[in-house]
Amino acid sequence: MRYIRFLDQSGVEQQGVVEGHVVKGTMGNIFEEIQYSGEVWPLHDLKLLPPVIPANFYAAGVNYSRHLESVAKKKGVPFELPKQSHIGYRSPSALTGNETPIVVPKASCGRLQFEAELVAVIGKSARNVSEADALDYVFGYTIGNDVSERQWQAADRTLWRAKNCDTFKPMGPWIETNVSLESLTTVVRMNGEEVSRFRTNDMIFGVAATIAEISRFITLCPGDVIWMGTDEPTLDMVAGDIIEIEIDGIGILSNTLIAERD
Amino acid sequence: MRYIRFLDQSGVEQQGVVEGHVVKGTMGNIFEEIQYSGEVWPLHDLKLLPPVIPANFYAAGVNYSRHLESVAKKKGVPFELPKQSHIGYRSPSALTGNETPIVVPKASCGRLQFEAELVAVIGKSARNVSEADALDYVFGYTIGNDVSERQWQAADRTLWRAKNCDTFKPMGPWIETNVSLESLTTVVRMNGEEVSRFRTNDMIFGVAATIAEISRFITLCPGDVIWMGTDEPTLDMVAGDIIEIEIDGIGILSNTLIAERD
Repeated sequence: MRYIRFLDQSGVEQQGVVEGHVVKGTMGNIFEEIQYSGEVWPLHDLKLLPPVIPANFYAAGVNYSRHLESVAKKKGVPFELPKQSHIGYRSPSALTGNETPIVVPKASCGRLQFEAELVAVIGKSARNVSEADALDYVFGYTIGNDVSERQWQAADRTLWRAKNCDTFKPMGPWIETNVSLESLTTVVRMNGEEVSRFRTNDMIFGVAATIAEISRFITLCPGDVIWMGTDEPTLDMVAGDIIEIEIDGIGILSNTLIAERD
Repeated sequence: MRYIRFLDQSGVEQQGVVEGHVVKGTMGNIFEEIQYSGEVWPLHDLKLLPPVIPANFYAAGVNYSRHLESVAKKKGVPFELPKQSHIGYRSPSALTGNETPIVVPKASCGRLQFEAELVAVIGKSARNVSEADALDYVFGYTIGNDVSERQWQAADRTLWRAKNCDTFKPMGPWIETNVSLESLTTVVRMNGEEVSRFRTNDMIFGVAATIAEISRFITLCPGDVIWMGTDEPTLDMVAGDIIEIEIDGIGILSNTLIAERD
């Protein structure tokens, strides 16, 4: 099933299930029980919202060895595989949906980089779960673009504005519940041209290991999201660029960069 | 006015306004319009919840010069006043209310430290607001204990488990809307004995400056919280310790450390 959130033609927030080219409206908490409302919309007409607004927004850092190697090289430090997951946080205020603009802040130098990420959406409360059981707590998967302003990332003590400006966290287009992790490939296209391709599940710490590790200390809640990190390359984008992240079997997340207006 | 959230005797979540020793029940969104429900409870009977669950949870780091000096000394680096706010994030999953336990995780060495913090609660959507106008966007203030596991803080790449384990973010007892920042003093007591006292508003970057700075990049939303950092000392606590943070004019946040059970 593919769960989406969207604004209908009157600008009212709605939720639904995608079936081919139509969306069947639903009511209720998607993590508990939903009912069909009887309303149906054509999918292409809708302004999509992030498919979930998480209470807690986790991001696994430097979680692919090629990306880690590249970061180490830029910093001039030796490359070592990490011994444990690097869990960070992002802020829900930065989320935006599929086919909405990524706004380049006036104060930025104008160059942002994409990071193409698999996103696991938690479906059930999880504390102290084993790696073997962890995937039972996943509701489904979506796609995230962990947009990063590298000058701020290098200059600031934290990632707050480098990664959390308004619109810096496109997520979508929907939550797909029927996913086989091993079969996924992530492809990034800029202005229609393929610029990155990697095996999605080639993470250093996979979805199950990350859920198990977080849940040793923290209760994961329905709707929480874990962004699983990106592989290389992560390239500059400037205003006007269209950036598409496709994970086959999930969908395509597409956003265009625009400059902030005065 | 003092706004609280609590569980009533039947375990149902309620909200209300404190007047002396009683709580008058309210309905509606406290950032828009509330109505009195007509219900009244004695304050001392209630199990308090964090007075708000923020969508976005900000924390200003190293924001008092004595604390910064001490951190620099421990790291063996020269002490310099920062040129800009250090904004970080915490996770709502870690929040707990007044008079609830702080649970020391089994995997911890057993020593946690308190950090006594003023918390500003945003009342209105804020983007690109000036420092002069910024306090108009504050709904009120409460108290936070930014509980920290220093071994994990030193060992991990991020603060995720050092500062965000379940129960590591006590907040409360309520939101006080009538506060004069300049007159506030923060006092910390451990097991009844005063161990720290500082002028609350002696921050390097004050509430107004921090709101203005965040709002240059990010839309602050009603209910978002900004924890304003702590001054020295921050001391070890172990299971059994009772830690009280008082900010005169706001209230007292009291929590007891307990060990996680098997």
